[in-house]
Amino acid sequence: MQIIHTIDEIRDATAPFRRRFESVGLVPTMGALHSGHLSLVRESMSRADRTVVSIFVNPTQFGPGEDLQAYPRPYDHDLELLEREGVDIAYLPSDTEMYPSGWSTRVAPPAVANQLEGQSRPGHFQGVCTVVLKLFLQILPDHAFFGQKDYQQVAVIRQMIRDLDVPVALSVCPTVREPDGLAMSSRNVYLSVDQRPAALGLYRALMEARRAVQQGEVDGHALMNEMRQVLIDSGVDSIDYAVVADPDTLDVLDQIDDRTLGLVACRVGTTRLIDNLWLTDPPAG
Amino acid sequence: MQIIHTIDEIRDATAPFRRRFESVGLVPTMGALHSGHLSLVRESMSRADRTVVSIFVNPTQFGPGEDLQAYPRPYDHDLELLEREGVDIAYLPSDTEMYPSGWSTRVAPPAVANQLEGQSRPGHFQGVCTVVLKLFLQILPDHAFFGQKDYQQVAVIRQMIRDLDVPVALSVCPTVREPDGLAMSSRNVYLSVDQRPAALGLYRALMEARRAVQQGEVDGHALMNEMRQVLIDSGVDSIDYAVVADPDTLDVLDQIDDRTLGLVACRVGTTRLIDNLWLTDPPAG
Repeated sequence: MQIIHTIDEIRDATAPFRRRFESVGLVPTMGALHSGHLSLVRESMSRADRTVVSIFVNPTQFGPGEDLQAYPRPYDHDLELLEREGVDIAYLPSDTEMYPSGWSTRVAPPAVANQLEGQSRPGHFQGVCTVVLKLFLQILPDHAFFGQKDYQQVAVIRQMIRDLDVPVALSVCPTVREPDGLAMSSRNVYLSVDQRPAALGLYRALMEARRAVQQGEVDGHALMNEMRQVLIDSGVDSIDYAVVADPDTLDVLDQIDDRTLGLVACRVGTTRLIDNLWLTDPPAG
Repeated sequence: MQIIHTIDEIRDATAPFRRRFESVGLVPTMGALHSGHLSLVRESMSRADRTVVSIFVNPTQFGPGEDLQAYPRPYDHDLELLEREGVDIAYLPSDTEMYPSGWSTRVAPPAVANQLEGQSRPGHFQGVCTVVLKLFLQILPDHAFFGQKDYQQVAVIRQMIRDLDVPVALSVCPTVREPDGLAMSSRNVYLSVDQRPAALGLYRALMEARRAVQQGEVDGHALMNEMRQVLIDSGVDSIDYAVVADPDTLDVLDQIDDRTLGLVACRVGTTRLIDNLWLTDPPAG
């Protein structure tokens, strides 16, 4: 496995793949790799000839007062995991490589970025879109792999790819969960044993809503009230949102239709957790 | 020469060039081609194996009340000119091909976009950056060719390429002028014979400033006053700006240094004209 730190080197390392007509898969991560990330890596390995995994804790997608400094950076362990998976290239650019002095162009993200996370984390998706586009243009992958866990991020990036004609095919992989249902997240390491029951509230709320939909509930507000009640009963410290929404626009739905997603964001102690689940049958493919 | 109207077709048409390792040059234009454009086309033909010329009057770079509707669109004549030059592909996408329903992602341009034209034409460079990036990502050229006439546009695109890591080499070609000195522009067709002397004021003002610098003038404000006086004497109807500036940041200079550019924008009747000139020796290359 090659370990690469600069834009020039990642270009030099990936150019031969293109010259030999080998397809390239990219798994963009912020490191602190868990089974969710590894499922993306395996999907890339099975779909593309070459797999690049980027590890970059992107400062521009963190707001003031967020956990940029505290974000876990177990790089040696991450590299061991990637080596074991047989990844071709681990790409770890520095902050100054990505954002040199004088850097100022950004991506103004699509409208779907203004919903949910966009309300709670202003500027977050501008940072995400910009860094993802930069990684795409540095590496020129054929495929990029993201997790359903960050559903809105996927919706935003999918729309950016469409709107800017980025020549990358996006694949979305299912959320990987702990045995108790907690969605895998690098931020789960922040949770104490005592906080676990509250953290599980997110998945429980979503499962309750899905069960209600399966039993015929169609009233969006009734479902959202039920989700909030489950979250409160579980002991979360605050709720940023708990909604049923259109999967493309993320507009909140008064009435369930045949493609409806539930999405929640809560704080447990100082840790912010998000999760989502299809409340109706997920779309094929 | 292939004439292409859709993104899918331009991708299909350029993919074989890449497969055969032929380099691709792109000359992005809004049509109404003149000798300035043709100099870019010839530069591309000499530097790249294949040349694509795009013709697209980009609505998102025009402000309210600007000349989007009136902008000349002599497409048949343009195509004849390109055919005669031996261009490989003329690419003429429609507005809905470039901006389909639901389109909303934009490029937030670099800081240099806020100067000069950015003051006179808010939103202009966001439109320029977005359409140029889209064309780059549709066509994936190795080289792109722009004219020095739109100096700030070049500075903005150069910075966007750097900041977003766009894998395109930018070439800037000298401004082509009419025998009387008027910079070639598609908007010159708006000028009546009576307006010509005023229009020539732009070049005269810049040449006066250059002569003064060569004679030892170093005071930026003295030079700018002189430029304004020449413009007024020539009969322009209004001056948007007439400045001596740093060529990278476009900050106005109190004091000339060894790399200084003069830039002017005026209205002659309802026609807005711009021009620029190196007041010091231009940088090599």
